[in-house]
Amino acid sequence: MIKTIWIFLFALGSYASHSQSSDEEMIKQLFDQALSQGQSYKMLYDLTTNVGPRLSGSPGAAAGVEWSRNAMKQLGFDSVWLQPVMVPHWVRGEKEIGRIISKRTGAVMVNVCALGGSIGTGPSGISANIIEVKSFDELKNLGAKGVQGKIVFFNRPMDPTKINTFGGYGGAVDQRANGASEAAKLGAIAVLVRSMGSNLEDYPHTGGMRYAPNVAKIPALAISTRHAELLSQQLKDEKDLIFYMQNSSETLEDAPSFNVIGEITGTEFPNEIIVVGGHLDSWDLGQGAHDDGAGCVQSIEVLRLFKTIGYKPKRTIRAVMFMNEENGLRGGLKYAELAEKNKEKHIAAIESDRGGFVPRGFTVPTDAIAKERVRSWKPLLEPYGLSDFSQEGGGADIGPLANQGVALLGFLPDSQRYFNYHHTAEDTIDKVDKRELELGAASMAALVYLIDKYGLK
Amino acid sequence: MIKTIWIFLFALGSYASHSQSSDEEMIKQLFDQALSQGQSYKMLYDLTTNVGPRLSGSPGAAAGVEWSRNAMKQLGFDSVWLQPVMVPHWVRGEKEIGRIISKRTGAVMVNVCALGGSIGTGPSGISANIIEVKSFDELKNLGAKGVQGKIVFFNRPMDPTKINTFGGYGGAVDQRANGASEAAKLGAIAVLVRSMGSNLEDYPHTGGMRYAPNVAKIPALAISTRHAELLSQQLKDEKDLIFYMQNSSETLEDAPSFNVIGEITGTEFPNEIIVVGGHLDSWDLGQGAHDDGAGCVQSIEVLRLFKTIGYKPKRTIRAVMFMNEENGLRGGLKYAELAEKNKEKHIAAIESDRGGFVPRGFTVPTDAIAKERVRSWKPLLEPYGLSDFSQEGGGADIGPLANQGVALLGFLPDSQRYFNYHHTAEDTIDKVDKRELELGAASMAALVYLIDKYGLK
Repeated sequence: MIKTIWIFLFALGSYASHSQSSDEEMIKQLFDQALSQGQSYKMLYDLTTNVGPRLSGSPGAAAGVEWSRNAMKQLGFDSVWLQPVMVPHWVRGEKEIGRIISKRTGAVMVNVCALGGSIGTGPSGISANIIEVKSFDELKNLGAKGVQGKIVFFNRPMDPTKINTFGGYGGAVDQRANGASEAAKLGAIAVLVRSMGSNLEDYPHTGGMRYAPNVAKIPALAISTRHAELLSQQLKDEKDLIFYMQNSSETLEDAPSFNVIGEITGTEFPNEIIVVGGHLDSWDLGQGAHDDGAGCVQSIEVLRLFKTIGYKPKRTIRAVMFMNEENGLRGGLKYAELAEKNKEKHIAAIESDRGGFVPRGFTVPTDAIAKERVRSWKPLLEPYGLSDFSQEGGGADIGPLANQGVALLGFLPDSQRYFNYHHTAEDTIDKVDKRELELGAASMAALVYLIDKYGLK
Repeated sequence: MIKTIWIFLFALGSYASHSQSSDEEMIKQLFDQALSQGQSYKMLYDLTTNVGPRLSGSPGAAAGVEWSRNAMKQLGFDSVWLQPVMVPHWVRGEKEIGRIISKRTGAVMVNVCALGGSIGTGPSGISANIIEVKSFDELKNLGAKGVQGKIVFFNRPMDPTKINTFGGYGGAVDQRANGASEAAKLGAIAVLVRSMGSNLEDYPHTGGMRYAPNVAKIPALAISTRHAELLSQQLKDEKDLIFYMQNSSETLEDAPSFNVIGEITGTEFPNEIIVVGGHLDSWDLGQGAHDDGAGCVQSIEVLRLFKTIGYKPKRTIRAVMFMNEENGLRGGLKYAELAEKNKEKHIAAIESDRGGFVPRGFTVPTDAIAKERVRSWKPLLEPYGLSDFSQEGGGADIGPLANQGVALLGFLPDSQRYFNYHHTAEDTIDKVDKRELELGAASMAALVYLIDKYGLK
């Protein structure tokens, strides 16, 4: 009996070690292919330079849909299709104008841009006294008396001491999202928001804002961090500064658009689906390179890598380019709605929407078993720089799948440079490093391979 | 007795946990200061744009010495001094010329640069048939018959599948270092070496080369990776291509220069020294921003951080800007020589010479106890992205201290982008991310703090 157990344990050990080594080999194949003959950078170059920005409802977004469909068709995926969805259609209009007007020193032009969703000022713009606050509490303390008829200037910076820059972003973005309505409640006539950027820069960052129901809608513009500092400094010396702003942005009727989907059908469990995705829409100022062209081409590359090395997944692997993450999430909501309606069984969804930077790890599912399963793969992934599995969650687009019990994960690249480019004219292909992008695609492929092989239950 | 042990263990646990938490606080203070009011980026901006390239023996190197001395004086370190050292003095001369000359299609200009140490071709240049090889074995198989009177073109790329790009570099750099003499042994009249770059680029990478004793010296130039591909392709169609190259580089007499040293004197053990350093010299093509201006300003910043937060180290902490790492290592050798002569007791030396990129970890001492001590600090350092303590060793400049039993360590930033810029005209300040640089400086300060407090024995 003892002997039998020994033989059994020996066989088990040998099996486990064989399995580990075949996983190592497969993962190495994926990385070797991505780094030596990868297509992710070429695809991103094409998408960003030949299609360009892809704001929901714009011709660029429509071109992005066609680009994605063609790219996946040409790669010979088993199926490629479009999923119709109506999206919000906000347009920026003419280039915005911002000006600090001092009685003592004259006028200075500053770099501003409308926040996504903002109404316009009308062609003659808005001139008013401007008052600086760092928080909603400070705003409320000023009261209607201090705010009425003025422009409110929200100037709380991203906290630079947060090591994860998303922490700094999370601590400042309420000003951009809700500042306009909070100020309007007290009678402000417009808001100017310090850009959500990690550093002092000359260019403004756009991004989504929302008007609260039953509150007057007032224009909301972002100002570059460097000019926010300048304005703050001038306000110290001269409380009665005038600020002039002009923008012509407006929201049109909803427009038809699409999620774009490509898949490789599973050989054993074709009805079990693993999603890898990013969002195809972007803001209008740059090329949507890091946000989120990177996630789109990495998702396509995952499927291409499997095909190229001849790996036939047991489960169905789907690359999804979601539409309208930036200002509505309509694509993500539609995808989840149809998944439920069509009784599709999704076992996992992985989103890449934190830029095409060097891999650090993955965010993991909240379910305890699934989480531990993913963490148990760390020895296989750490040689590729994937060592951080500490955070839970997936991403905005796949979020609506949570109700269906889908395990949600996210690709976690290094965050340091993301908010240099996020939502700006600087989010262009030259800010993406080829190897970093390729390593991300291979990392996602490695994770999909492991989920496909071992499941998450 | 049992009770006594319990009390003892409880007290010990409480002490350990108090100590752990005070270390956490101190390390957080260092990072907070570096990220919110750090000076490393400002110093690097100044060094790279106002001083510029700093090749050993050049006026730029002399200016770099003065810059460093002033910078540390102004920061009020306890002592700042210069350590004289004679250095090699190689000069590039006029901009090099490279041309592929085809009987069929005419001449094409290609981007080349002399390798550091190369002799010149003379003003009329060299025209000859060119033969491509990928290895020294291939070269030897051609023999004198195949090589005599020709230019040898070494075209083995850096292996892109190496995750650590220093692995790819290590697998290709023999061509640059020793290619000229290996080819000259078989009668070649010049060599052209594919640049040590991770990607296809338009600009060449320079770097050190050596002539073997008693072998004819022949000119050695690097060609951009993109033009290396072009040349290789053209050679497939047309074996008798002519290559023309011209360069006027030469080695002058050794020149006087200096290591630059600043220190904060230890309060308890002033005779025990911990070094943090980088090298002040750079190649002449760019600004020496990543290589190694970054390491210099990070080293200065370590001492500044201690002073600013009011931490008084028990041991003496020295920032050393070594001279001549790139083409002679004279500064590193001189530093070790004087340390021995003056009977200085160095307990550790940490080098930063892998670029100012986002921190990944540290290379650790070879001594088992010291290595385990450093690894035991991982829980304190991992929250800052420092998780890789797998490699042993320090850096080139501190290497000569090994004979004196000094524990050698290295700052280990992410390697993916380093060989985009290394030794090229692209190694400029705009390639350095402010937060990444600051995180590196704080990482080094955290490690020095731990070594100062706990030692390595």
